[in-house]
Amino acid sequence: MSEPLIIGVDLGGTNIEAAAVRGGEILASKKKKTRAPEGVDVVIERIGKTVRKVMDKMDNDASDYSALCIGAPGAVDVKSGVVHSAPNLNWTDVPLGERLEADLGLPVIVDNDVNIGVLGEHVYGAGKGTLNMIGIFVGSGIGGGMVINGTPHYGWRGVAGEVGHVVVQPRGRQCGCGRRGCVEAYASKTAMEAIIREEMEKGRSTEVFEIMEKKGKKKLTSSVIEASLEAGDALMEEAIQNAQYYLGLLTANLVNVLDPEVVVFGGGVVERLGQNFIDPIGRTARQHYLQREGAEKIRLVPATLGDDAGPIGAAVVARRRLQSAL
Amino acid sequence: MSEPLIIGVDLGGTNIEAAAVRGGEILASKKKKTRAPEGVDVVIERIGKTVRKVMDKMDNDASDYSALCIGAPGAVDVKSGVVHSAPNLNWTDVPLGERLEADLGLPVIVDNDVNIGVLGEHVYGAGKGTLNMIGIFVGSGIGGGMVINGTPHYGWRGVAGEVGHVVVQPRGRQCGCGRRGCVEAYASKTAMEAIIREEMEKGRSTEVFEIMEKKGKKKLTSSVIEASLEAGDALMEEAIQNAQYYLGLLTANLVNVLDPEVVVFGGGVVERLGQNFIDPIGRTARQHYLQREGAEKIRLVPATLGDDAGPIGAAVVARRRLQSAL
Repeated sequence: MSEPLIIGVDLGGTNIEAAAVRGGEILASKKKKTRAPEGVDVVIERIGKTVRKVMDKMDNDASDYSALCIGAPGAVDVKSGVVHSAPNLNWTDVPLGERLEADLGLPVIVDNDVNIGVLGEHVYGAGKGTLNMIGIFVGSGIGGGMVINGTPHYGWRGVAGEVGHVVVQPRGRQCGCGRRGCVEAYASKTAMEAIIREEMEKGRSTEVFEIMEKKGKKKLTSSVIEASLEAGDALMEEAIQNAQYYLGLLTANLVNVLDPEVVVFGGGVVERLGQNFIDPIGRTARQHYLQREGAEKIRLVPATLGDDAGPIGAAVVARRRLQSAL
Repeated sequence: MSEPLIIGVDLGGTNIEAAAVRGGEILASKKKKTRAPEGVDVVIERIGKTVRKVMDKMDNDASDYSALCIGAPGAVDVKSGVVHSAPNLNWTDVPLGERLEADLGLPVIVDNDVNIGVLGEHVYGAGKGTLNMIGIFVGSGIGGGMVINGTPHYGWRGVAGEVGHVVVQPRGRQCGCGRRGCVEAYASKTAMEAIIREEMEKGRSTEVFEIMEKKGKKKLTSSVIEASLEAGDALMEEAIQNAQYYLGLLTANLVNVLDPEVVVFGGGVVERLGQNFIDPIGRTARQHYLQREGAEKIRLVPATLGDDAGPIGAAVVARRRLQSAL
């Protein structure tokens, strides 16, 4: 069977990225600003425009595509295509699938952006060829997903994979989710920034906020982290080591429960710092693996698809869905 | 297809239980002491004797049985039937499957006892009718297993399900596995006894050890726990509450990652204390669930098969294996 032609879209808080994808290859792509503060209708219209630009580049029209699959940053009902809650977009219960089908006239599949990224890495990236893979994505939050026995695991309610909300410190730091001690409250960029700020307020010095200002950033981005580490900022180093320690505990917990072949780390921080960011995570993880034969063979590796994981993963999800519908 | 007739065996540190099982029903059974200190050969001979007793009761011989499945307490290679490590039996690399096949002349399947118990509960017990289930067994250690999308999850190396070694307290109590902070170091019977002993050595009073002596027990058994709670022993109550708190964190972590429909709790403590033991676990767990629709519908329930989970679960595993071999 020849690979179907699919539109893959990554809907982020900042950018919309759309691409025409066939068999893991991006044939044409287009990026536009999301403009979330202008409201749901504007964003949906801009998705349509971005997709049409891709179709124009390809010199194709909607009927040549088997499906469109879009990854949204939040809780998605994959059956109905409704985005229940996407805080970065300020969306609640948006029937994204239905709206895009009406606009573009082709079948639309909606899924969570991190699930999609994990599946992209599984089929074409760092998890290629494995049956059991865990993905951990470190960004302003911490997300993840799992492939179990070769199949993406969605869970009973369809909300599996919330690895960022594994409690790694009982009665610990307040997390953005309202609970305490989640790994996201220690190892996300948001958490690292908060921890550095707290230490600074206690009287310790840091260059992180100067670097942030110099780069014109309003929050701790991956490039600010990299520049701060290059400047030898002690607080930044401690925040990274703290994040790595808790990500190591998370990894060990997931390995002891799920016994994967590979754990793939993605997100901006990992893209910038690569295997150097992952190695200390691995050292802590291995200290907490239950001693069983083969533990040393479990691979902890960086994601390889980068920004392409969104559209390529979306095409993987679409193809799966098309096949299961046959 | 009529249900095959299967011999299910539960090999424990204390007892060997064998039963003839068809379709979740025990038709005849026999229990003998394991006598592990007398060595591997004695134990294997005693397994054979126990099985023959069952066959005698049934008035059948080996050729009437489709298979024998035995659950061993430790790390098992399910493909080769070798028990790699079973500390309770003091076994290392015992080719149990091969030895029993030679003795009894029927196909033998070897699996981990907790995996088998979880599958028994899934097909005929508290997890019946679900596609995604987690089992947590509280005994002298803490074991577990998972059914994911209707299929038992073994993992890449075949060692998935080690829920007892999820770290719930970084740099916490020493665990029997050599690591620190595992839930087993807080919530197993072994851990509860150690915690009570430590508090007593600090000068607090407890009746637990008198009750233990009165009952002729050398360690904290489930019946000692029950009697101590009935006597209103404050240290025993604290130890139970502490165990429930950490089991609640474990449950929340597993729910946030795996999104199961039901979590089944088994083992002696749960059999004795029932839903009263589980309810406080549920309260802590729900405080740490990520808020997502339907979280309140996840059921936390006691196992229902009791001692029969071993032989019935073994028959489930055998039937699965026979079907996949067809």
